[in-house]
Order: sequence, then structure tokens, then C-alpha cells
Amino acid sequence: MTESAPITSLTNPRVKRVVRLRKPRERRREGVLLAEGHREISRAVAAGLGLAEWFACREMLDDQLDGWPEAEPTWVSREVLAKMAYHDKPEGALAVFETPSFSLGDLPEREAGFYMVAVGTEKPGNLGAMVRTAAVAGCDAVLAVGPAVDVFNPNAIRNSTGAVFALPTVVVEDPTEAVAWLRERGVTVAAALADGGADCYQLDWAKPGEALAVVVGPEHAGLDQTWRDAADVKLTIPQAAGSTDSLNASNAAAVLLFEAVRRRSC
Amino acid sequence: MTESAPITSLTNPRVKRVVRLRKPRERRREGVLLAEGHREISRAVAAGLGLAEWFACREMLDDQLDGWPEAEPTWVSREVLAKMAYHDKPEGALAVFETPSFSLGDLPEREAGFYMVAVGTEKPGNLGAMVRTAAVAGCDAVLAVGPAVDVFNPNAIRNSTGAVFALPTVVVEDPTEAVAWLRERGVTVAAALADGGADCYQLDWAKPGEALAVVVGPEHAGLDQTWRDAADVKLTIPQAAGSTDSLNASNAAAVLLFEAVRRRSC
Repeated sequence: MTESAPITSLTNPRVKRVVRLRKPRERRREGVLLAEGHREISRAVAAGLGLAEWFACREMLDDQLDGWPEAEPTWVSREVLAKMAYHDKPEGALAVFETPSFSLGDLPEREAGFYMVAVGTEKPGNLGAMVRTAAVAGCDAVLAVGPAVDVFNPNAIRNSTGAVFALPTVVVEDPTEAVAWLRERGVTVAAALADGGADCYQLDWAKPGEALAVVVGPEHAGLDQTWRDAADVKLTIPQAAGSTDSLNASNAAAVLLFEAVRRRSC
Repeated sequence: MTESAPITSLTNPRVKRVVRLRKPRERRREGVLLAEGHREISRAVAAGLGLAEWFACREMLDDQLDGWPEAEPTWVSREVLAKMAYHDKPEGALAVFETPSFSLGDLPEREAGFYMVAVGTEKPGNLGAMVRTAAVAGCDAVLAVGPAVDVFNPNAIRNSTGAVFALPTVVVEDPTEAVAWLRERGVTVAAALADGGADCYQLDWAKPGEALAVVVGPEHAGLDQTWRDAADVKLTIPQAAGSTDSLNASNAAAVLLFEAVRRRSC
């Protein structure tokens, strides 16, 4: 990479713009997301996201690594990078990408589609972890249902290790729209309940060649009536005698997605 | 509860002591832990932990709830509680308990014991989530292996929803000590590897009536040679083609613990 003098001023307008982008409202307004560190940036590049601009600190950047954007970065000082970064350890680089916008209509039609539906997931970090798990389990897409779900929040990106770029993750504000989409495709809706559902190890709820959606609700409230009505099967992960809580949403999703994988590959 | 005038001064010595206790070093020095909110405090009480003192804010406290300590709290103002609390939302009360100290020798002997071994778990919040899952899966104890593991860190307590009080969680600094303890009891050691192990759905690795430990390592480095050598079986959770990462440590633990539950109850 050819080199130009790094930006060292914390009040440089381009620096101030990125600092503003740490606010969700500003990212939405500009239609962009922030990716920090090699793993996240290289996966955004690999997923074909449009690069707006990227910043790097010469001393911190490991340019031996593959996957950085082809364009030359805007060089900045260590202090400027720290000022711009959302996370404590920006690992030498920060990039602004155009936010991909998936809708249900963009999803490819699948024979035996496999979906995770995350309903009302409050914390972006939890949603990111769930998207990562859905990618490992081989889901075709994630439906993130609810208002104000921020799939491309920096914590979601980090905890997904970039899976939110590679796996189609569709925000669906209205749950009835998500239910209708699944219904039209004949997808079996398997809803996770903390209690009162069938034992997920006893019931025969997933088969090879059948389309399936595993639906996990918010941790405290659980799934609301819309999803309970829409469910073809209601599942509960068995809980040891004497344990006071059920699993957290991310772990419940992991257990059910992989039990589905096991049943679908039998 | 009878009422006395609340502490309103942020520089009150008792307030300043609790503020100091937010540092791990100070908690270790005094041999105490901080529990905040109704769920955590009531579970510490239920687990029989020794109460040092507790503080509550009249306007914020829901004393209709069961499980608060019997002793009258020291009443404090909203501002004082916020100053003392580790988390943003202390929910009206904060308590100082004596830290329970479990060693391997304290664990009850079990016929077909079921253990989770968390090796080198860096973040207390992740360890807490794993302890919660181990409790739901019916583990008899958790072995948290590695130096400087802070099982009673406020984030561990919160993410475990108090399971760290109810489920014996033993910190074992030296891995060889943990391996020896498992060996002496004839516990099958099942080690989780991100890749290269047997497919956890193909291999017959857990049976009813057999003692079992599921060992999960730190996310980036994975399990070291000590655990690879100690493993009776090495397991890998199958990963969908094209997915770039394996599961995070907490989700990997959840999937393997519940696959063990399924196999042990067949």
C-alpha cells in the first residue's frame, strides 16, 4: 500500500462523522454500518458489502493478513482510531460499509428450508451470537422479528463474528408477516417455550427433507400469543429437577437448532 | 420492616467500602461478593450464603417479593444505591455476602456424576451463562479451570441468574489437579474440539449410569495439550458447509451438555 500522512486531529470532519456513526440513529440515517477489526472487515468484504471508506493505523495494522479491502485506507493515528472505534480494541482498522437490506422477498426459495426466527431479541450482542449459531447449524436465513431490531449494531456484528454479513438476516417488524411467509412455504413452525411444551427429545418434530423454522422468544416474556397460535409444535428443553431457570435465549436456540440438525440428518 | 433514616451521603464510609468492593482485588481481600437485585439476592439467601450486610432503597424496593434477607437492610437513597451498584439497574437492593469457597474435596461423591469443566473461560459473563446451562442440564458441579477465574464476579452472578450460588462451582487453578480428580472417580472425559474430533452425533460417547465430564476450552485457543491428552473422547459439533466459525464456548457447552442429557436418558 502506498502511504499518505495519517490524520492526527481528533476534530477532523471525517473523524467526527465516524464518531457520530456510533449512534444507531446516525447509522440508519446514512444507511451504513461500522465494522472493526480484521475478522469483521474481511468478512464484510467477502460477503460483497459496498465499502464506503476505511481507516487504518499504520503501527497497528497487520497487512500480512488477507481480506482487507483493496482500496487504500485513510491512514490515521492510534489516538484517532481509538476515538472513532466503538469497541475497546479496534485492532488497527475500522470500516464503513453500506448496510445490506434484505427483505423476505429477497430470500431464495428452498426445498427444505431451515430457518431461525429470533423474536424480540433485546440485546444486539445476543442476536449476533444467535446468528453465528444459526450459520454453524446450516440455517438458510435468520428472521429477526420485532420493532427496532439492530442486526448491524457493532455488538451484533462482533458476536456473530461477521455471520450477519454472510447469512441473510431479515428484520421483520410485523410478526404476522413472518408467520404468513413461513405458512405460504409450508414451513413447520417449532416454537420454544420455557415450560409447557413437548419434551424436545421425545416428540418427533423434525425430519429430513422437511422445511423447518425454530422460533425463540425474548428471555423474560417468552413467545407471545401470535407465535403460540402459529406454532405447529411447541417444544420445551427438559430442565433438571431443582434448577430454577430455563436456558438463556442464545443457548436455547443452540440446543434446539442442533437437535433439529440431528433429526434432519438421521 | 421498621424504618430508619436512609444514608444519603455518597462519602459515607460504608458506602465507600461497597464502592471499593467493585474491584475484584478488594472482594478477594475481604472474602466477599456483591449480589444485586431480587433474583440474585434471594438465590444467595436460598443457597445459605452468609450475609455480611445489605442495602436497599425504600422507593425502589418491592418488599412484596419473597426471599429478601430476614435482617433489616441499611436504607440508602436512590443516588447512594446507584453509586454503590456494579450494574446499571440495581433493582432497589444490593447485598454483600461471604464468598462460598468450594474445593474439589468438598464435592459430594456421586455414582454417575455429571460435570461441566470450563477451561480458561476469559469473561466472567460467559462463565456465568455456562454455569446457568450446567444447572439446567443437571450437572452435579462445575469445575472452572485456570488461574484468576472470577466465579463470583458480578457479571458471572448475573448471567448465571444466581446458579453460581446453588450449583457447586469449584475454581481449580492447576489443570492436572482437575484431571486427577476426574481420573480417580472413573469419570469419562469428553473434550470439545472446534475441529478434528469425532462427530458428537455419530460417536456413542455417553450412557446412562456412567460418570461424565464435558470439557469446553477458551474460544480462540481451544483446549491445550493437557486436556487433549486427558480426553477419553474428543468431540466436534458438526459445522455446516460454508460456515466460517465454530460455536462460541457457551453455545458449544449447551449443545454438548444437552446431547449428553439425551444420551444419558435413553
